[in-house]
Amino acid sequence: MTYGGGSIKRNGLYDLVKAELNAAGCTVFELSGIEPNPRVTSVDAGAKICKEQGVDLVLAVGGGSTMDASKAICAAACYDGPAWDLVLDHSKIKAALPLFTINTIAATGSEYDSAGVITNWDTKEKLPIGSSLLWPVVSFLDPSLTYTVPANQTIAGSCDMMSHFFEVYFVRDLSPIAQGLIEAAERIAITYTPIALKDPKNYEARAKLLWASTLGCNGFANLGSTGSIFPCHAIEHEVSAYYDITHGIGLAILTPRLLRFWLEKDPSVAPRYVDLATNIFGLRRENYESEAALIEAGLKALEDFYASLGIPSGLSKLGITNEHFAAMAEHIKTHWIGSFDYCFVPMTNEDIVTVLERSL
Amino acid sequence: MTYGGGSIKRNGLYDLVKAELNAAGCTVFELSGIEPNPRVTSVDAGAKICKEQGVDLVLAVGGGSTMDASKAICAAACYDGPAWDLVLDHSKIKAALPLFTINTIAATGSEYDSAGVITNWDTKEKLPIGSSLLWPVVSFLDPSLTYTVPANQTIAGSCDMMSHFFEVYFVRDLSPIAQGLIEAAERIAITYTPIALKDPKNYEARAKLLWASTLGCNGFANLGSTGSIFPCHAIEHEVSAYYDITHGIGLAILTPRLLRFWLEKDPSVAPRYVDLATNIFGLRRENYESEAALIEAGLKALEDFYASLGIPSGLSKLGITNEHFAAMAEHIKTHWIGSFDYCFVPMTNEDIVTVLERSL
Repeated sequence: MTYGGGSIKRNGLYDLVKAELNAAGCTVFELSGIEPNPRVTSVDAGAKICKEQGVDLVLAVGGGSTMDASKAICAAACYDGPAWDLVLDHSKIKAALPLFTINTIAATGSEYDSAGVITNWDTKEKLPIGSSLLWPVVSFLDPSLTYTVPANQTIAGSCDMMSHFFEVYFVRDLSPIAQGLIEAAERIAITYTPIALKDPKNYEARAKLLWASTLGCNGFANLGSTGSIFPCHAIEHEVSAYYDITHGIGLAILTPRLLRFWLEKDPSVAPRYVDLATNIFGLRRENYESEAALIEAGLKALEDFYASLGIPSGLSKLGITNEHFAAMAEHIKTHWIGSFDYCFVPMTNEDIVTVLERSL
Repeated sequence: MTYGGGSIKRNGLYDLVKAELNAAGCTVFELSGIEPNPRVTSVDAGAKICKEQGVDLVLAVGGGSTMDASKAICAAACYDGPAWDLVLDHSKIKAALPLFTINTIAATGSEYDSAGVITNWDTKEKLPIGSSLLWPVVSFLDPSLTYTVPANQTIAGSCDMMSHFFEVYFVRDLSPIAQGLIEAAERIAITYTPIALKDPKNYEARAKLLWASTLGCNGFANLGSTGSIFPCHAIEHEVSAYYDITHGIGLAILTPRLLRFWLEKDPSVAPRYVDLATNIFGLRRENYESEAALIEAGLKALEDFYASLGIPSGLSKLGITNEHFAAMAEHIKTHWIGSFDYCFVPMTNEDIVTVLERSL
C-alpha cells in the first residue's frame, strides 16, 4: 500500500482502506511519503519492500504522484536492478506486479493509463515510464474522496487535465470524434473547476472533473488522430525536473505561450484556434471583425481563465531564470517520447528556448 | 470463415483473405450465405461445422449481419443445444470460440462490441445475443474495403450508425463527455454520408464513417451516462422481425416520430432537442423567434436529411400495416434488454403503438 504525504490519514481514507484490507485477511506493507514529482529513490524503496516481503500486488491510495510511483514500483519489483534502468529503457519491463488504485484527485488520469513520470534528482531528469504491463487492474473513483483536495491542488489538477486534452487537440491530424470529446472535456474543466473551488463538496462538479480527467491519457482522446507527442508536457517536465514546481501550474503558464508561438510560426494552423475560440469558449465569429480577432479573443479567454484561477503570470514568479533553458531543450530532443519534428508545428531547440523565455 | 451473399467474391476480398489464410497454413471451413437480418438457422449451421471439424476460431468477413451471426456461432459452437437457447438466455453462454472480423461496411459497429441480433422466422422474433465472451479478438477496418458498398447499403449503414448514437443521446442522464462524442459522430454521419454517396471512393469520407460507426455500440458513447435502453432499436427489431425490412431504413423512419412523441409527452425534455438543433445541425437560437421554433427546425433538419437520402416517408411504403403493432409492443415488454419505464420518456405499450402508427 503506497501513499503520499499523509492527507489520507487526515481525511480518514487510510483507516477505511486498512480496515477493508484487514477484514479481507491481507498482509499489508506500507510505503508512505511518496513525493509530488515522485522520485526514483521512492520507487527503489518500494521495489525493495516488494521483493523482500514477496508482495503480490500494489495498492496506490492517492493522486498522480502516488500512482505514477506505484507503476514504477510494480515494474521494478520484477526487475533485477535499479528502477532508473526501466525509465531509461521501457523495453526492459518484462513483468510487473498488478496495480490497483484508489484515486483521490482529478488530475493526471494515471488511474486509467499505462504510464507515469519519475524524477531523478541526481541527474536532474524527469522522464516517463510506460508499458502495457502497467495499466491498473482496477481503479476506484469516488468523487466524494476529492472533496478535501485543497484549492491549489484542485487548480493544478484541472490545469493538468486541460493540458492532456490540449496535447491531443493541437495535433496535425485531429479526428472529428476526438475533437468532440476533447472540446467537451475542456468545457467541463472550464465550467466545473470554479464551482469545485467555491463549493468543494459539490458532488456534480467533483464527479464531472474526476471523470473527464480520467479520460485524459488512456488513448480515448486521441482515437483516430495521429501525431500526438505531448510537447507542452515535455517542456514542463524539463522545468520541473530542474525546479520541482507543481506540474499543473507549469503547464498552465506554458500553454498559452506555446499556442501563440505555433500560430506565429505557421499561420496555416489558424483553423484549430478558431475551434478553440468557438467550440471551447463559446465565442461567435459574427461578434469579431476578423478571424484573427476571434482567435485572439479565444487565446485571451484561455489566459483569463488561468489568471482567474490564480496561476502566476510567468515562470520568473516561481524563481526560474533562463539559466538552464538551452540544456532543457537539448535534453528533450534526446529523451522525449516523440520528436518535435512531428509536433503540431515542428519545433527546433531554439523554438523551445523561445517559448520558455516568453514564459518567464 | 463466414460471409454473406457473395459481394466479397465479386470485389476480390475473398481471394485475398483465402490466399493469406492458405499462406499461414490454416485449414479453412466456410459458411456462406449469411442473410441480412441473420437467421438462427445459419447460426446452427455454422455451429455444426465448428463442432464437427474442431474449428479453433471464426473469421467473419463482411458486414453487421455476418459479424452478428458469427458471434452467435462462436457461442453455439461451445454449447450443447440449439443456438436459440443462448439468444433467449445469455447466461447460458459459458464459453465461445475466439472471433476475428474483417469489416466491410460502416454501419453496425458489431466489429467492436459484444452483441449481435439474431432472427428466428419460426417464432417471428428478432432478439439480441450478448456476452463479454463475444468481443471480437481483432477486427480489421480498412476504409477502402467499403468503396464497393452500394448506395442503398451506405445509406442504411449511416442511418444505423446515427441511431446508435441517438439511442445514447436521448437518455435521462447524459454525461458531457458522451454528449461531445455523440454530437461529433452525428455531424460526421451528416457531413460524410452525402460525400460517400457522390464519390464512393473518397477515402476520407469512408474512413470517417467507418471509424465513427465502429464506436457506436462499444460503450464509449455512453461513458458516464446512465439509462440507455436503445428504444428505437427495440421497436425497429420488432418491425423487421415481422417484415424483414432493412434495419437502418426502419430506424430512419421511426427516429423522428419517436423523438417528436417524447417531446409531446414530456415537454420538460426540450433542452436535449435544443442541443440537437444547435450542436448537431448547427442552427442558432437567435435566428428563431422561440425555443420551440428552434427545436422544430432541428427536427425538420433531421427529417430533411433522411429524406435527402431517399428514406421512404413511412412504413406503409414498405408494405407494412398496423396489423401486428399491438403484438410487437407486447413482445418488447417481455423480451427487450431494458424496460421502457427507464426510457428517456417512459413509454407504455399504447405509446409504442402510437409511434408505430405515426410511422406508417
